[in-house]
Amino acid sequence: MIRVGVIGAAGRMGTEACKAISAAPDMELVAEIRRGDPLERLVEAGVEVAVELTRPDSVMGNLEFCVRHGISTVVGTSGFDAERIATVREWVDSGATPGVGVLIAPNFCVGAVLMMRFAAQAARFFESVEIVEMHHPNKVDAPSGTAVNTARLLAEARAKAGRGPLPDATETGHEARGLAVEGIPVHAIRLRGLVASQEVMFGNAGELFTIRHDTLDRAAFMPGVLLGIRRVRERPGLTVGLEHFLDLD
Amino acid sequence: MIRVGVIGAAGRMGTEACKAISAAPDMELVAEIRRGDPLERLVEAGVEVAVELTRPDSVMGNLEFCVRHGISTVVGTSGFDAERIATVREWVDSGATPGVGVLIAPNFCVGAVLMMRFAAQAARFFESVEIVEMHHPNKVDAPSGTAVNTARLLAEARAKAGRGPLPDATETGHEARGLAVEGIPVHAIRLRGLVASQEVMFGNAGELFTIRHDTLDRAAFMPGVLLGIRRVRERPGLTVGLEHFLDLD
Amino acid sequence: MIRVGVIGAAGRMGTEACKAISAAPDMELVAEIRRGDPLERLVEAGVEVAVELTRPDSVMGNLEFCVRHGISTVVGTSGFDAERIATVREWVDSGATPGVGVLIAPNFCVGAVLMMRFAAQAARFFESVEIVEMHHPNKVDAPSGTAVNTARLLAEARAKAGRGPLPDATETGHEARGLAVEGIPVHAIRLRGLVASQEVMFGNAGELFTIRHDTLDRAAFMPGVLLGIRRVRERPGLTVGLEHFLDLD
Amino acid sequence: MIRVGVIGAAGRMGTEACKAISAAPDMELVAEIRRGDPLERLVEAGVEVAVELTRPDSVMGNLEFCVRHGISTVVGTSGFDAERIATVREWVDSGATPGVGVLIAPNFCVGAVLMMRFAAQAARFFESVEIVEMHHPNKVDAPSGTAVNTARLLAEARAKAGRGPLPDATETGHEARGLAVEGIPVHAIRLRGLVASQEVMFGNAGELFTIRHDTLDRAAFMPGVLLGIRRVRERPGLTVGLEHFLDLD
Repeated sequence: MIRVGVIGAAGRMGTEACKAISAAPDMELVAEIRRGDPLERLVEAGVEVAVELTRPDSVMGNLEFCVRHGISTVVGTSGFDAERIATVREWVDSGATPGVGVLIAPNFCVGAVLMMRFAAQAARFFESVEIVEMHHPNKVDAPSGTAVNTARLLAEARAKAGRGPLPDATETGHEARGLAVEGIPVHAIRLRGLVASQEVMFGNAGELFTIRHDTLDRAAFMPGVLLGIRRVRERPGLTVGLEHFLDLD
Repeated sequence: MIRVGVIGAAGRMGTEACKAISAAPDMELVAEIRRGDPLERLVEAGVEVAVELTRPDSVMGNLEFCVRHGISTVVGTSGFDAERIATVREWVDSGATPGVGVLIAPNFCVGAVLMMRFAAQAARFFESVEIVEMHHPNKVDAPSGTAVNTARLLAEARAKAGRGPLPDATETGHEARGLAVEGIPVHAIRLRGLVASQEVMFGNAGELFTIRHDTLDRAAFMPGVLLGIRRVRERPGLTVGLEHFLDLD
Repeated sequence: MIRVGVIGAAGRMGTEACKAISAAPDMELVAEIRRGDPLERLVEAGVEVAVELTRPDSVMGNLEFCVRHGISTVVGTSGFDAERIATVREWVDSGATPGVGVLIAPNFCVGAVLMMRFAAQAARFFESVEIVEMHHPNKVDAPSGTAVNTARLLAEARAKAGRGPLPDATETGHEARGLAVEGIPVHAIRLRGLVASQEVMFGNAGELFTIRHDTLDRAAFMPGVLLGIRRVRERPGLTVGLEHFLDLD
Repeated sequence: MIRVGVIGAAGRMGTEACKAISAAPDMELVAEIRRGDPLERLVEAGVEVAVELTRPDSVMGNLEFCVRHGISTVVGTSGFDAERIATVREWVDSGATPGVGVLIAPNFCVGAVLMMRFAAQAARFFESVEIVEMHHPNKVDAPSGTAVNTARLLAEARAKAGRGPLPDATETGHEARGLAVEGIPVHAIRLRGLVASQEVMFGNAGELFTIRHDTLDRAAFMPGVLLGIRRVRERPGLTVGLEHFLDLD
């Protein structure tokens, strides 16, 4: 049984995570930290792995506490730029608490991680590729961060394979919601009833290849969170991205 | 047996039409007019219904000949604006050859006609709607004419039902291939391997409704051409649009 | 303002309906009847339209009460066979309470109703058609009732148009989840993560035509319920099926 | 420039291959062998890589000739069982013509190979999975060989990951076209207008993940054939399956 503590237990993701951890046969939820609760409770409860699900303005303090107390941590909070990542790396590599592992995952959804990885692998085999991301109409940004990241991976894989620009005879009419990210068209659909979906479409003469991912519910993130909890201590040091825990090679 | 003549028999559509007419159990292909052939052959062969599949610069002359000789005609050639339509209407309504029927169909694909009609009917029941059209990368225009026409029908149906603008919280990133046509977003995908597809996506809270049409081959137009041949004489005068021959009400 | 009462207000559909009615600008929710509550409250509250969302074993009594008291009623409870429908028709046509309208709708989802109607209209234009229904894996029956109904409508429309059996060269391997309903193949997919979706796929040489409907949430039924409430009094007598309220012709 | 010879140059795949090889900037088509032509022409023309695209009853003789004459060969002809593969392995491993490479590929379509590989990798992360294969109605077998192979790979990957049977509450109605292959449902759709498509659908609570491949034209096989020609000499000995040439790890 892994003794787990959740920081941000009252938030939407935190609530879902507490439920999933409680239901997991190999875990025990021993601490739920809400805003204002002292982090020392994690230590008192003998937490082996913490899950950090708060906000960008509190995550660094929480993470530093965990690392300094030798608690391996799975972080789902967003807002990690290169500087923050460098800071966290310094903490875990300082040698003060050897063996502690930290996983920072911008996306805990296994399906989204697989989509990006498979798309990057497929990119060099196809002449054409475009991305369609589909979300509910209350989403403020367009295109989505996941779509922009996927486009960058595709552009990089095409460049490495020596593929030039996408074939495209059109000259007019580039005013729809979306963006070409490093030459990869990203179309953004906003429709009441949608939650969060993405499709990557590849094409060669006589052939189409499509990878699609639909997230319908916060429950979609839980298998990734549980996987992180199970494996973060096996991998001391800092890991960025759930894909490194999936043993895909 | 309907005695049919094809004008433009050597073109791509004409070749396909000759094949389809020859294979139809209730038709006889009695005249194939190629460029330079005299139209009188239609009369000599006793053609009852002509199919006009040439080009915008020759269609008007051919059509006038047919009407004046009392030959009902199914026209697939493009380029009919309001003025040309008015001219044709004058010919057929002149009373010189009573009973002659002309069908001008910008799209002979029954599936495309159904898509537009069903989309227009569904429009008032949904809060959101967007169009995605997908074509091969050699297509010069974007969005496609069919997509623009569909968007106009959707906008009109929404206006009639008193529906306001689509819900959309995004402010940035409107630079993808495509266009908002009268407020209806039209996304244009260009991918090697695609031929011609279109999807109309509707959404309400908790519900999505999608109509999709894929044209893969010129054969797709033949059921509409045959239907036109079978019915054009039952409907004297000028008809614009295959939908009027489909008995959908 | 229409004065509305909900019978079965504590159930899952009832709760959702109370919310939707309260939010509608042209309705007032004046009575919520839970199990054990006397139906007289509907009369006391001056209910003009009742919504019946209970169970097959209580719906007939509730409906009889409403009809006898001149309250027009929108019924979403299932279990109406020919005999029950005949009984209800007798009540409303007895003349005791002239002007009372009853709408019995096996499916309040506008998208599902449109899918069935459009599919039936498209059927005669295509050589092939198959249905794929997709649901969560806890659903006990397969294929779904909606899919079976759709297949029957398709078979009927094909028969009327003189279309024979579907082209199919396969001889072996008919053991997948699903059924051929009156000759129309219905495939049943059961997948964790799905809620309730259905696709009707049509095909001709060189052409595909697809209608898809996804229900993701009980909210999908509310536009149909509200439409029924708004219009049931305009249509005295018994109406079976929401499609008659959609003015599709 | 690689000097290439095609055996079976007059067949449908052979014709397409000759065209693709002639168009490739790094290849020269120096021999086209039709039925009855002596294989010695391959030697006389200095062929470095042969492409075998004939039939099961002639492929073994052709392949033996090539191996014995030190010509590396890319084989697209079907009908290789374990026994035939063992025979070919003996030829290439005999040491008589060191350095000769043979690639036997049951499927030259890169997209189909990627679909199978990605599906096998994704299998252990999802609770549910089903396959839908879609083909033209003249195809005699159902489900398709590719779908059956994919199902086997999925079943194997699930077994290795310790995943039990798929969740499924249905008890009745297993009579649709298709088959459960080692517990993985495979649905077979036959529709006029379709060519050859396959979809693998995965699901977890709140999440769907789909991989789809559409083959529309024989051209789809050519990138795989060209890739095989370019790389078969780098890999002496026998290779079965194009996936080993894709450097996916």
